[in-house]
Amino acid sequence: MRTGRVIGTIWATRRHPSTEGLTLQWVLPESVAGEPDGSAIVAVDTVGAGPGERIFFVTASEAVIAIEEVEEAPIDAAIVGIIENFTLSPGEL
Amino acid sequence: MRTGRVIGTIWATRRHPSTEGLTLQWVLPESVAGEPDGSAIVAVDTVGAGPGERIFFVTASEAVIAIEEVEEAPIDAAIVGIIENFTLSPGEL
Amino acid sequence: MRTGRVIGTIWATRRHPSTEGLTLQWVLPESVAGEPDGSAIVAVDTVGAGPGERIFFVTASEAVIAIEEVEEAPIDAAIVGIIENFTLSPGEL
Amino acid sequence: MRTGRVIGTIWATRRHPSTEGLTLQWVLPESVAGEPDGSAIVAVDTVGAGPGERIFFVTASEAVIAIEEVEEAPIDAAIVGIIENFTLSPGEL
Amino acid sequence: MRTGRVIGTIWATRRHPSTEGLTLQWVLPESVAGEPDGSAIVAVDTVGAGPGERIFFVTASEAVIAIEEVEEAPIDAAIVGIIENFTLSPGEL
Repeated sequence: MRTGRVIGTIWATRRHPSTEGLTLQWVLPESVAGEPDGSAIVAVDTVGAGPGERIFFVTASEAVIAIEEVEEAPIDAAIVGIIENFTLSPGEL
Repeated sequence: MRTGRVIGTIWATRRHPSTEGLTLQWVLPESVAGEPDGSAIVAVDTVGAGPGERIFFVTASEAVIAIEEVEEAPIDAAIVGIIENFTLSPGEL
Repeated sequence: MRTGRVIGTIWATRRHPSTEGLTLQWVLPESVAGEPDGSAIVAVDTVGAGPGERIFFVTASEAVIAIEEVEEAPIDAAIVGIIENFTLSPGEL
Repeated sequence: MRTGRVIGTIWATRRHPSTEGLTLQWVLPESVAGEPDGSAIVAVDTVGAGPGERIFFVTASEAVIAIEEVEEAPIDAAIVGIIENFTLSPGEL
Repeated sequence: MRTGRVIGTIWATRRHPSTEGLTLQWVLPESVAGEPDGSAIVAVDTVGAGPGERIFFVTASEAVIAIEEVEEAPIDAAIVGIIENFTLSPGEL
């Protein structure tokens, strides 16, 4: 998983039918320090993550596993948790 | 998923038989701001995306799921939605 | 898929048995403009691509699907088409 | 696999149910020389790796295989071993 | 596949049980010219590759297919061939 932040929401009426009803969030991957780190991706939200929340997400085939509404769908990224707290070894931030 | 823009179409008569009849679009990945962000990829279109439209696409094994015409094919990217609108948190653009 | 060019061929007698008889081409990924763009990869040829030809290839688990000779093999890249022609939106090259 | 170091632990009460009870470690990928090399990832620990230990981890669909507690879960990274020792060819460090 | 060179061996007694007995080689990916090109990875050797040998390796789920000793294991990279010889188009080196 990578960590990131929810920075926006995408609306799309013309989309693959299997993805209808799923919320598509724009996620900016971040470093441990919370700085932007990599290209923004579009992920399906499975934990009710709101704008600005620091989350972690899975990519590739694991993403579909997170989504209860569908058996199989062309989705390759899903938000699977919200970071509540974390510890870091001394000197890592 | 990543967001991007359809910038062209590829013709290929010598191609794997399982991909015959599928439209191959050249897609340039983009940042949230709509700037080019990464190497161009070739994706199968599943939503009727036209030149210049801003879309989102899946990669790897999820791509085949999007394509109704085939059960199994050597395809690793598919356009699965057209961005109609989006919201961004303040300061993200 | 990514686009690229066949730049060489690899010979290997000590190789995984399931890959015997398959042609291993060295492929250099390219940008839309045909400039080198990324690290060279080794791909199994499924369409008879020759040296210098501009092709597109799949990666990861989709690659095996392209190869008729094997059911299952440790192969993660395959050439699946030869670019015959393409159109580009104005200003994209 | 890549090598890296455990630099922290993440707490998340709002997370995908299938991942409950699993320890989420923050891992910084490293070069052979032990220097940071790539973006930090979040991995499930399967070998009892502690802070500062040098480990190796798998990514993508292979990660779930490492986790005995679950059959299927939206997890794409797992720590699968702790580096005890290594040899390097002369001139490689 | 990517090409690379075996630069070292990793010892790990604390490792996922399904990987016991497998040789873990440190592989440095290389360009066509044989220059280091990318981050070092840890791969299971399936062809008896020795230190300094120029090899090619698969990544992701294809890697497990290469390993006879196991049905399923958290392994995402495997050496599957040793480069014996290669040809390159003029001007590519």
